[in-house]
Amino acid sequence: MPTFSHPDFAAARFTQAPDARFVPAPADGVLPEEFFSTTNLPTYVRVKGQWRMPNEPRMDSALVLDAAGELWVREGRRVRKGDLVAVGHAEDGSEGIFVHAAAFMGDATEGEFKFMTSEVSREKPIDYALMAGILIEERERGGYPVWVTGPALVHSRARNDMAWFIANGFVGALLAGNAVAVHDIEASIFSTTLGMTSSGEATTGGHGLHMRAINKVRAAGSIARAVEQGIVKDGIMYACVMHKVPFVLTGSIRDDGPLPDVITDALAAQDAMKRHTTKATMAILIATALHAIATGNMLPAFVTEADGSLRELPTICVDSSEFVVSKLKDRGTHQAFGVVTNAQDFMHILRLYVERELDARGTAARPRAVAAAR
Amino acid sequence: MPTFSHPDFAAARFTQAPDARFVPAPADGVLPEEFFSTTNLPTYVRVKGQWRMPNEPRMDSALVLDAAGELWVREGRRVRKGDLVAVGHAEDGSEGIFVHAAAFMGDATEGEFKFMTSEVSREKPIDYALMAGILIEERERGGYPVWVTGPALVHSRARNDMAWFIANGFVGALLAGNAVAVHDIEASIFSTTLGMTSSGEATTGGHGLHMRAINKVRAAGSIARAVEQGIVKDGIMYACVMHKVPFVLTGSIRDDGPLPDVITDALAAQDAMKRHTTKATMAILIATALHAIATGNMLPAFVTEADGSLRELPTICVDSSEFVVSKLKDRGTHQAFGVVTNAQDFMHILRLYVERELDARGTAARPRAVAAAR
Amino acid sequence: MPTFSHPDFAAARFTQAPDARFVPAPADGVLPEEFFSTTNLPTYVRVKGQWRMPNEPRMDSALVLDAAGELWVREGRRVRKGDLVAVGHAEDGSEGIFVHAAAFMGDATEGEFKFMTSEVSREKPIDYALMAGILIEERERGGYPVWVTGPALVHSRARNDMAWFIANGFVGALLAGNAVAVHDIEASIFSTTLGMTSSGEATTGGHGLHMRAINKVRAAGSIARAVEQGIVKDGIMYACVMHKVPFVLTGSIRDDGPLPDVITDALAAQDAMKRHTTKATMAILIATALHAIATGNMLPAFVTEADGSLRELPTICVDSSEFVVSKLKDRGTHQAFGVVTNAQDFMHILRLYVERELDARGTAARPRAVAAAR
Amino acid sequence: MPTFSHPDFAAARFTQAPDARFVPAPADGVLPEEFFSTTNLPTYVRVKGQWRMPNEPRMDSALVLDAAGELWVREGRRVRKGDLVAVGHAEDGSEGIFVHAAAFMGDATEGEFKFMTSEVSREKPIDYALMAGILIEERERGGYPVWVTGPALVHSRARNDMAWFIANGFVGALLAGNAVAVHDIEASIFSTTLGMTSSGEATTGGHGLHMRAINKVRAAGSIARAVEQGIVKDGIMYACVMHKVPFVLTGSIRDDGPLPDVITDALAAQDAMKRHTTKATMAILIATALHAIATGNMLPAFVTEADGSLRELPTICVDSSEFVVSKLKDRGTHQAFGVVTNAQDFMHILRLYVERELDARGTAARPRAVAAAR
Repeated sequence: MPTFSHPDFAAARFTQAPDARFVPAPADGVLPEEFFSTTNLPTYVRVKGQWRMPNEPRMDSALVLDAAGELWVREGRRVRKGDLVAVGHAEDGSEGIFVHAAAFMGDATEGEFKFMTSEVSREKPIDYALMAGILIEERERGGYPVWVTGPALVHSRARNDMAWFIANGFVGALLAGNAVAVHDIEASIFSTTLGMTSSGEATTGGHGLHMRAINKVRAAGSIARAVEQGIVKDGIMYACVMHKVPFVLTGSIRDDGPLPDVITDALAAQDAMKRHTTKATMAILIATALHAIATGNMLPAFVTEADGSLRELPTICVDSSEFVVSKLKDRGTHQAFGVVTNAQDFMHILRLYVERELDARGTAARPRAVAAAR
Repeated sequence: MPTFSHPDFAAARFTQAPDARFVPAPADGVLPEEFFSTTNLPTYVRVKGQWRMPNEPRMDSALVLDAAGELWVREGRRVRKGDLVAVGHAEDGSEGIFVHAAAFMGDATEGEFKFMTSEVSREKPIDYALMAGILIEERERGGYPVWVTGPALVHSRARNDMAWFIANGFVGALLAGNAVAVHDIEASIFSTTLGMTSSGEATTGGHGLHMRAINKVRAAGSIARAVEQGIVKDGIMYACVMHKVPFVLTGSIRDDGPLPDVITDALAAQDAMKRHTTKATMAILIATALHAIATGNMLPAFVTEADGSLRELPTICVDSSEFVVSKLKDRGTHQAFGVVTNAQDFMHILRLYVERELDARGTAARPRAVAAAR
Repeated sequence: MPTFSHPDFAAARFTQAPDARFVPAPADGVLPEEFFSTTNLPTYVRVKGQWRMPNEPRMDSALVLDAAGELWVREGRRVRKGDLVAVGHAEDGSEGIFVHAAAFMGDATEGEFKFMTSEVSREKPIDYALMAGILIEERERGGYPVWVTGPALVHSRARNDMAWFIANGFVGALLAGNAVAVHDIEASIFSTTLGMTSSGEATTGGHGLHMRAINKVRAAGSIARAVEQGIVKDGIMYACVMHKVPFVLTGSIRDDGPLPDVITDALAAQDAMKRHTTKATMAILIATALHAIATGNMLPAFVTEADGSLRELPTICVDSSEFVVSKLKDRGTHQAFGVVTNAQDFMHILRLYVERELDARGTAARPRAVAAAR
Repeated sequence: MPTFSHPDFAAARFTQAPDARFVPAPADGVLPEEFFSTTNLPTYVRVKGQWRMPNEPRMDSALVLDAAGELWVREGRRVRKGDLVAVGHAEDGSEGIFVHAAAFMGDATEGEFKFMTSEVSREKPIDYALMAGILIEERERGGYPVWVTGPALVHSRARNDMAWFIANGFVGALLAGNAVAVHDIEASIFSTTLGMTSSGEATTGGHGLHMRAINKVRAAGSIARAVEQGIVKDGIMYACVMHKVPFVLTGSIRDDGPLPDVITDALAAQDAMKRHTTKATMAILIATALHAIATGNMLPAFVTEADGSLRELPTICVDSSEFVVSKLKDRGTHQAFGVVTNAQDFMHILRLYVERELDARGTAARPRAVAAAR
């Protein structure tokens, strides 16, 4: 993954720049008129002559300077009346705020005639070896890969593969909606998803099976208890519970049930997701437009290493259509690398490559022991 | 639109059937183990020898008999401990519950070799004249067409057309997410959507404009107040406010802001949507998978007329890809008629056909006066 | 694969039917006005009181009775003035021609409410084990699987996998267009496809590399000679040449070059393809709408075994979008089973499953020795 | 439309450049090893100290200097043994050939964080007013707009609109495949396309109707004679015949029939198409990947005006999916402007805007009288 240098703050454009200007928020959840709106790129704010990076970077938010002099990126809805919020539109440092765009957004086109220059296309080769290598390295160094999945993953029988990644320490946290857990649990109890068998047949009475699955978990009180009681015996949620991998299930208006663990308030759900995205060192977004964009909104495009250096946050977006990946990029998650394929096939081959690479390295796949001890 | 007869309950299969069996719910929000799971089709429940249709029909729910002897279709989460819930799996009346599937799901294939038999395809002609006719008839008889839209509608400049339908009495209620209102209001204030101009150009600093639009409305306190204060001067939300067309904005984890009117709790949002879907006499679902499926889940496939007769509930689903329409049908909204096109073009031509038909009938387009008086 | 019985011709509807009526063609390539237009389903023609099946069944063609009393399905353009052509529209035997549709087209819908009933969807599981099993069985019994591929297969690095299937006896014939061979040969010579590297980068000067590859083969005189001369050293075309697997490269207006082996006349190309489709016992159509539909048009939906019994002709259609598969079915190839995924991933997993199954059976993958001796 | 200046050939990089080097072709249809491979951009070749532009510019071809000293862009297959062919890889003039890429391929990205920067998306607004204006201006100045269409146009009832454009002088030439004409003529004779009615219903016996339509035209001898004989009474091909708008129907392996006018040899068909693309001043590519890319390959990205000045050749590509437009661009037709919508809707609205604009200008739509006199 590419790494990036910090700008040279000894340059005149930085030494001559003013401090950023902060203005108190006029009301709870309301920003000053000319607030600076953040991006997901490395951002430096000049405070008392020092260029500093704010905590918890994400896009579409404000820069807040707290009483202790700490700088935060904070969603407008979380700002309280009187909080000091940075104002200004310039991103070039001239108003005390610098967005380090060049490294990330740089020279796409050099004015040369070429074929095959599109960014996202099913005609591009998929480098599974590269992705497998990144995943293994993340595990080696104790990274925090965030996996975000849509329900197609479960329908199309990638359940086992997803559970394998969870069980073997490749998943820092799982972010999904109610439907992923519902289909997964229906599959565990009834061997169907929305009443469809694992060979793709619709079944008589099958339309009610997801409701029966939900009802059983509601009766048990939580997914964890449904696992304990032997109602849920395998699959994705089972793996999360058994290997103590944290998950966030966020609600939507489409939800049946929902399952007891689902956070039905969107703002509370965002806050729960963000507790994981702020720790993320990698993101894998599979077969979901809504959750992928939601996560992309919360993610910085970069990882800040312990030594302060920056590297790109590897972000893989898998979808059957180019549109979802382009849409994600159009919402600012430019760092996303698009893989245009079926989620089932993606999971199957990715696991295969990871297993081969582990074999080659003599590193066994291993139950997530460290994680379990957390 | 097709109409349907009730079954002949004098037939032996019905006269010899038992009453439906009801069992108390074991806990709040938990259904009895063998609960009957509803569909969106006309359903008859035998109570004390009488075949009756429940109130508020929808799929994925339970049948509840209340203390007053009234029958309801109710979501499992809304059932309270001790409520009497119908049990049984049979849909053929043999256990006292009959789903009138034949009329709706009938003989698709008669074993004949034909071309062009797919249900959803961009190669199918789009009958705008038919759709325009249905819309006008709904207005004539005081129907309640529910419009459900995704943000692509706003991006691609169908704003004016949507506002026209609202202003002229063709919209009973508008159901959408935060993003529709955000893009619409950004367009009103800044003439951009996500910073893209109306000719499709990305603008410098444009990435923050939706946040600025949200912030202005949050400062005003509500969309209605932002209209009153002259902040929002045109567009979809403006038309809703001015013509007193009710709208429901439901939250999602992807939301920026959100706007003050957004219902962020998914269950409260579902309840708010359902207040409109239970009145719906037509549904138009445009460029949204999430909201279309959510609405499809809540909608009966039929309208019960004042005289008790049944007709199909016209349900139009517009999307750029066949997949969304097929997915909606795969979730049980079989009555949906798919239109595979761009939302912008759909709105433009539909309005044109409605205007022509009004001209032909000598009926002027007219501000929604009756509606405004509600 | 399903097998089918012949109809019971002792039934009254057949014993009382008249002989089919034949009328001379009015001119070369022109059929009599009321000609019977064929389908791809088992068809029986009553001639002198006997119900007989014609040779070389395919859709969109005519039934011709030759001087020797043989029955043929023949494209209109190949009919000569005076040839005896069957007339009539009825497919139920009442005019002496019976299309055995029931077995194939049968009862799709039984009027029951179900989820997940769509025919083609990315949400359907993909049964690689089943497909691998069919392929191995075809090899065991000396079947003739016809593979039809589009260029995306080559772009996305499934070249090796395709070459493996060719080398190991799983390919009866390869049907493709100029582009497949061009990209494959560019990859062999320059390690790019349309100038894109195997990791997806566009290269400077890369836009001309496919032209240079074509030019080298044109200079050599044929693909086989380019292999002999060591210009083409690996890949799909190399494997065909080395293992003597026949291929047909058909021309199109989009072609660069073309390569010397390409049949540029569409009718000659159809005739060349049909020499293989009439022998086909299985069809695998990957990432091509044009060639898949072309092949579907020529293929019967069934295989006639040596003993006269019938079975469905396994037809797998792989594409990134549901649309191509639906379009193929809409053109009458109803027997096609759709796999909605990326061609690269499909090939990789299919090979993996075939290898595993061969291992499990103790049957080694083996160079196509029998084939090579042809 | 953007216009472009020629480079300043007084600059040192041009005055110091050598003449281009020409080498005789080693055999018919075979280019010298290091041939220069052309692009669709303005290209200048230094011959005897003069920078000159070749005739008939297109991509994927060679530069040939004929005996008369004329420069041509010529497909490799058309080069004869001994023809002088330019060699070299450099496009910057240093080997005597300069590709003027900057104007066309210029600075896409300036390293700034923006939303909505994707090139092709259904979320982009469609500027019908702009396209209508260009079409009218082309008609005003006697331009030569080439329309290239796929069969979806006919299926989905845009027939009338296409015929209107033909009849009113907006079509220089129509380039299509056999299927467009077949569906159009089936619609005229039987009111169906592939047996589907204009309201989208599959009909009994409908699968044979396209074959019956083809057979009638084959009996008549040509489309023009079928029009004369009253067999074809309306539609696209009828309009071409009546208004003497030239059309090229190119064959493919998928073709039924084909119709008598179809050029079945791909190379002859390319030559026929190129006679129109070399005159083109605008290109409109609708609902066809194959023909759009074929045309894109043959088209320069620019128009050379009578006075020698250059302007971009307006190229509109309409398809239901982003993929086709991106694929066209990935094959080098970078100038294409993508419209992601349904062909039927595109045609309907475009016509509407053209009619409105003609009204506004007081210019009546008018039968193509001048054209008819050609």
